[in-house]
Amino acid sequence: MQFHHHGYVSGDPRVQPAAGTGIDRPAELPDTVDVLIVGTGPAGMIAAAQLSQFPGITTRIIERREGRLVIGQADGIQARSVETFQAFGFAGRITEEAYRITEMAFWKPDPAAPSNIVRTARPIDDPTGISEFPHLIVNQARVLDYFAEVMANSPTRMTPDYGWELVGLDLTDDAEHPVHARVVRIADGGSAATGGGEERTIRARYLLGADGARSRVREAIGCTLDGTQANHAWGVMDVLAVTDFPDIRTKCAIQSEAGSILLIPREGGHLFRMYVDLGEVREGHEAAVRATTIEQIIVKANEILHPYTLDVKDVAWHSVYEVGHRITERFDDVPPEQRDRRTPRVFIAGDACHTHSAKAGQGMNVSMQDGWNIAWKLGHVLEGRAPASLLATYNAERRVIAQDLIDFDREWSNLMAARPEELADPTELEDFYVRTAEFPAGFLTRYAPSLIVADTRHQEIATGFPIGRRFRSAPVVRVCDGNPVHLGHHARADGRWRIYVFAPADRAPLERLAGWLADDPASPLAATPPGLDRDHWFDVKVVHPQPHTEIDLPAEPAVFLPRSGPFQLIDYEKVYAADPRDDIFAARGIHRDGAIVVVRPDQYVSAVLPLDATDELAAFFAPLTGAPVD
Amino acid sequence: MQFHHHGYVSGDPRVQPAAGTGIDRPAELPDTVDVLIVGTGPAGMIAAAQLSQFPGITTRIIERREGRLVIGQADGIQARSVETFQAFGFAGRITEEAYRITEMAFWKPDPAAPSNIVRTARPIDDPTGISEFPHLIVNQARVLDYFAEVMANSPTRMTPDYGWELVGLDLTDDAEHPVHARVVRIADGGSAATGGGEERTIRARYLLGADGARSRVREAIGCTLDGTQANHAWGVMDVLAVTDFPDIRTKCAIQSEAGSILLIPREGGHLFRMYVDLGEVREGHEAAVRATTIEQIIVKANEILHPYTLDVKDVAWHSVYEVGHRITERFDDVPPEQRDRRTPRVFIAGDACHTHSAKAGQGMNVSMQDGWNIAWKLGHVLEGRAPASLLATYNAERRVIAQDLIDFDREWSNLMAARPEELADPTELEDFYVRTAEFPAGFLTRYAPSLIVADTRHQEIATGFPIGRRFRSAPVVRVCDGNPVHLGHHARADGRWRIYVFAPADRAPLERLAGWLADDPASPLAATPPGLDRDHWFDVKVVHPQPHTEIDLPAEPAVFLPRSGPFQLIDYEKVYAADPRDDIFAARGIHRDGAIVVVRPDQYVSAVLPLDATDELAAFFAPLTGAPVD
Ligand SMILES: Cc1cc2nc3c(=O)[nH]c(=O)nc-3n(C[C@H](O)[C@H](O)[C@H](O)COP(=O)(O)OP(=O)(O)OC[C@H]3O[C@@H](n4cnc5c(N)ncnc54)[C@H](O)[C@@H]3O)c2cc1C
Ligand SMILES: Cc1cc2nc3c(=O)[nH]c(=O)nc-3n(C[C@H](O)[C@H](O)[C@H](O)COP(=O)(O)OP(=O)(O)OC[C@H]3O[C@@H](n4cnc5c(N)ncnc54)[C@H](O)[C@@H]3O)c2cc1C
Repeated sequence: MQFHHHGYVSGDPRVQPAAGTGIDRPAELPDTVDVLIVGTGPAGMIAAAQLSQFPGITTRIIERREGRLVIGQADGIQARSVETFQAFGFAGRITEEAYRITEMAFWKPDPAAPSNIVRTARPIDDPTGISEFPHLIVNQARVLDYFAEVMANSPTRMTPDYGWELVGLDLTDDAEHPVHARVVRIADGGSAATGGGEERTIRARYLLGADGARSRVREAIGCTLDGTQANHAWGVMDVLAVTDFPDIRTKCAIQSEAGSILLIPREGGHLFRMYVDLGEVREGHEAAVRATTIEQIIVKANEILHPYTLDVKDVAWHSVYEVGHRITERFDDVPPEQRDRRTPRVFIAGDACHTHSAKAGQGMNVSMQDGWNIAWKLGHVLEGRAPASLLATYNAERRVIAQDLIDFDREWSNLMAARPEELADPTELEDFYVRTAEFPAGFLTRYAPSLIVADTRHQEIATGFPIGRRFRSAPVVRVCDGNPVHLGHHARADGRWRIYVFAPADRAPLERLAGWLADDPASPLAATPPGLDRDHWFDVKVVHPQPHTEIDLPAEPAVFLPRSGPFQLIDYEKVYAADPRDDIFAARGIHRDGAIVVVRPDQYVSAVLPLDATDELAAFFAPLTGAPVD
Repeated sequence: MQFHHHGYVSGDPRVQPAAGTGIDRPAELPDTVDVLIVGTGPAGMIAAAQLSQFPGITTRIIERREGRLVIGQADGIQARSVETFQAFGFAGRITEEAYRITEMAFWKPDPAAPSNIVRTARPIDDPTGISEFPHLIVNQARVLDYFAEVMANSPTRMTPDYGWELVGLDLTDDAEHPVHARVVRIADGGSAATGGGEERTIRARYLLGADGARSRVREAIGCTLDGTQANHAWGVMDVLAVTDFPDIRTKCAIQSEAGSILLIPREGGHLFRMYVDLGEVREGHEAAVRATTIEQIIVKANEILHPYTLDVKDVAWHSVYEVGHRITERFDDVPPEQRDRRTPRVFIAGDACHTHSAKAGQGMNVSMQDGWNIAWKLGHVLEGRAPASLLATYNAERRVIAQDLIDFDREWSNLMAARPEELADPTELEDFYVRTAEFPAGFLTRYAPSLIVADTRHQEIATGFPIGRRFRSAPVVRVCDGNPVHLGHHARADGRWRIYVFAPADRAPLERLAGWLADDPASPLAATPPGLDRDHWFDVKVVHPQPHTEIDLPAEPAVFLPRSGPFQLIDYEKVYAADPRDDIFAARGIHRDGAIVVVRPDQYVSAVLPLDATDELAAFFAPLTGAPVD
């Protein structure tokens, strides 16, 4: 954690000094904003948390509910999301309070006595060690709390505007603030329909609809959620109980003659969630299914668990969660035929774009990646760091991911809902689970080449950093203090591009590149406006192949020891060395001649280039920063 | 982290439900209290944080200052202290924001050009891997903030009473509340002497003077700080600066022809502290030394660092820290001749008992161990879990440690202050540093046999848990969920005794012990008063030698699966298995026939016993709990 560089900070260093729009932030919703976010679910909250780091931008996030989410909803946190939380500064804290999945148990009817269940497999959760972060279970409400804390501690001092409902939306020809959002102040538990306050219009440059599966924003931009499959219903309960079921603290897929259960142990050591299969919801039977009582769910759970019993002592939450696999045709307000003519002004994210079953534990995770993807892009466009065309990449990138996810979810849900005798192979379910581990962990996202993702021409010089996929961290040693650290964990959700220079043993090419980065007019750093520190838009780091004791810090090129803040202090946390116990060059397949790895503000790898490919580096950033290309 | 077992908790699980004296805690200082703590330094705050966990006890902590400490004072946090923070629940968070020491650099005059300094050694900080916790540097103010948070989140909802000065103290024959403390409400920056409010008397059962080096409590109980050595003065400054000194982010001992510096990099990446040697303070020269200005300190620092320069941009804090090695004759109000006749009522802790130089970075750390030691004992005596004679062990245990520390500190300070040519061997300083690493890390404390420390008769069956020393954690696997965890990290500062049962492969002796623990009237657990959960006073855990997948959880003896709370839910976090990657039985020298390891509430090992030594176990606890011994 870096702080104090503007002078001594007493108190919690997580609280950043107020700046820009945070200095006099009005408590009331203003009439005009840069970005209006609708909905404080995971998609909206991460977007708000990201935008809260841009002091020059006015962002407000409205929510129909009167206050924070209290209970229920999603709880599965993929390793990719924990990695994301690291960038927002709360991975450690949320991990401490979460349940951690290390294994998954599979239970089936006992062949000898099919009315009893027996454990058939217990594969470990992340056999390939795909991330240094864990797979967690924690209430969605806590995830939202942490994002709220990030916003409150940010320079812009953001807090959600609770008790406001969006009732309608118009795209006008107002040049500055074309999006006119009609909102109504509503009383607790009510809605605009059951009588709210007077309608107000908030004029926004951009609007993000993160307003869930029944999104009004989606409707307003003329999209629908489409899906081929019928809805499947699950009785969900978060309970405290006494049981003799041995795996009550292990994630389990239980298939018995009486039906199936997905068991998710929860944070705190006692609570657990059960998804009890209530079957397909046939048309006309919705009301009956939705009326399933908690008592019925508990009876069904006991039947499935036979010969074990479940004595439920306290019900924290229960619901009938009924969901199909659905996706909308686009994630912004620009129909295909207009893509060449205009850039989007309204976006939708999360459940507003795609819904899936709870089985794969994807909803909250994918929604957060949606929200992060659009938020930094909005920040860059609004700050003039990038052209508005950057915003079109949101729909292009995220819709593909949503489609992949729905395909995966359909296969997994069908397998889980299948009766054992319907499976081709008795181990089909656990095989699928192990085979596809990377997918549900959130790491299979691979963005296609675009304005912000280069081609794979030089991929072979850094095979462990696949272009378009998330930058996978690895251990290194920080030279200034000899601390063993994880290279990627230093990257904060601060909207900066990252340029990692993996150095060769020979210093000449490194010095040439460093000189070019620092001084050449075609260097991306040259686009940083005067008055801002040179590291404000670009975070440039170097990793040396030698042990850290062989690096002479004062002899490092200046671009790796940038000066910042009112005192122009040297930032020493940009110079790293390979850790001899786990060499990053070997672990990530980096060529001994070195490599430049360009990483997006949302942690995806944009480009891999040789050290002398300064022209290509300039050409990559030129369309973004408007820098000259020769 | 365990929670939810009393029902679902929304919000931060670190906030415990209010209970006992926390339910209607008065904002004003009450007239009578169980424990009055004077001073909110590290000694007082840890004691308050520990006592805040006892809902039945009324503790108040008063402080002369108007509010929290803002800046300055100690900053070195030994691994032992971080281990302690783990028990209080904030090790992870404070580590995130702290500077971490991994190496120490030694600089000396360059033999070729003695007016220049050169680096001569760079030993690593914890070569023996004595703790899994790091050695940190962080402002004392933040340590106190975290303890304040623990108190505020505790069942008793404690907050310090700022702006109260203790002016005097009387030990009366009031049967219930013999300690009468005279306190005065004071205005900001003022003191009782310069005009405070009216004097009030607070009547307390016990009083802890954690009121620093000029302790009035010490005076009131007739003690003095004695020391043989003259005071040594250091110019201390916390600054932001631009420098070409290569090791500015590494802890350094710098000895040059112009004098010596101890350089301590600070949290946040930019701030650092320098202790610049101002020499011995001869009698009559105190005023002159104390008048040393920050400009003079900076000039001196530049002379010492030659050929490097230091351009100080911002001074966060500076002071002339002048300290001798002093210790008081006893740590409580009972003179030696009265020890047989009465138990103590007034205690002193921390700097009130001992002062030492900043060089060894001990002040805050030792003070916290003092405070923790007395606090749990007070909790136990006040709750009727132990006889008042327990309180006499505080003086017996802690005074020895203070004396050891002062001896160590004297040697280290002399070495650091010595001019290079005065040293017998040029590497004497770094050799001493490496050789004694365990001491400054806080791990050499070894309490002698007493009411709460058994003899070492059976030490050989668990050689890695030396009796009287802190319980050294090791990795294990939690059986219920397959999570790799650290056995010791589960132990919270909740005042409980811990009984770790290391099981043999053979189940019979384990079952016998478990049955005895659960049901025998001589078992320490039998002392738990009716109405309290069986695990309320004693936390009993088992560690199996087999891999966790071979343990059948429902077949575990009931004492290892205790039920608690209003729903009598099963606690699954008491059953562990050796981690095959790092077998705790091998790592801690545990005999394959098993061992019982009894650990005190402050993490020190009390006893090591064979599984069948139930008589000895009963005999150990009988004097504490008043249980029958046969
Ligand atoms: C009741 C419920 C139960 C669920 N249970 C599970 C589960 O068991 N397992 C699982 O994996 N996933 C579950 N989910 C889905 C999971 O919570 C979502 O995938 C995830 O929250 C998606 O995040 P989001 O930000 O896109 O939308 P949401 O989290 O749905 O957030 C949308 C927010 O927008 C607000 N909003 C909506 N319309 C307006 C408006 N017009 N004006 C202002 N505010 C508005 C809503 O109040 C809500 O806070 C559940 C969802 C719900 C609603
Ligand atoms: C100014 C200063 C600078 C220091 N600098 C360093 C350093 O650079 N490096 C280092 O290692 N150590 C330093 N120390 C020492 C280190 O802070 C102590 O070793 C450590 O704080 C001891 O903790 P303690 O709780 O025993 O006492 P303290 O932290 O001294 O706390 C005592 C508290 O009691 C309060 N108090 C005193 N008398 C009364 C009264 N009559 N009524 C009410 N409240 C009272 C005081 O205001 C204070 O808050 C410094 C101490 C001081 C005071």
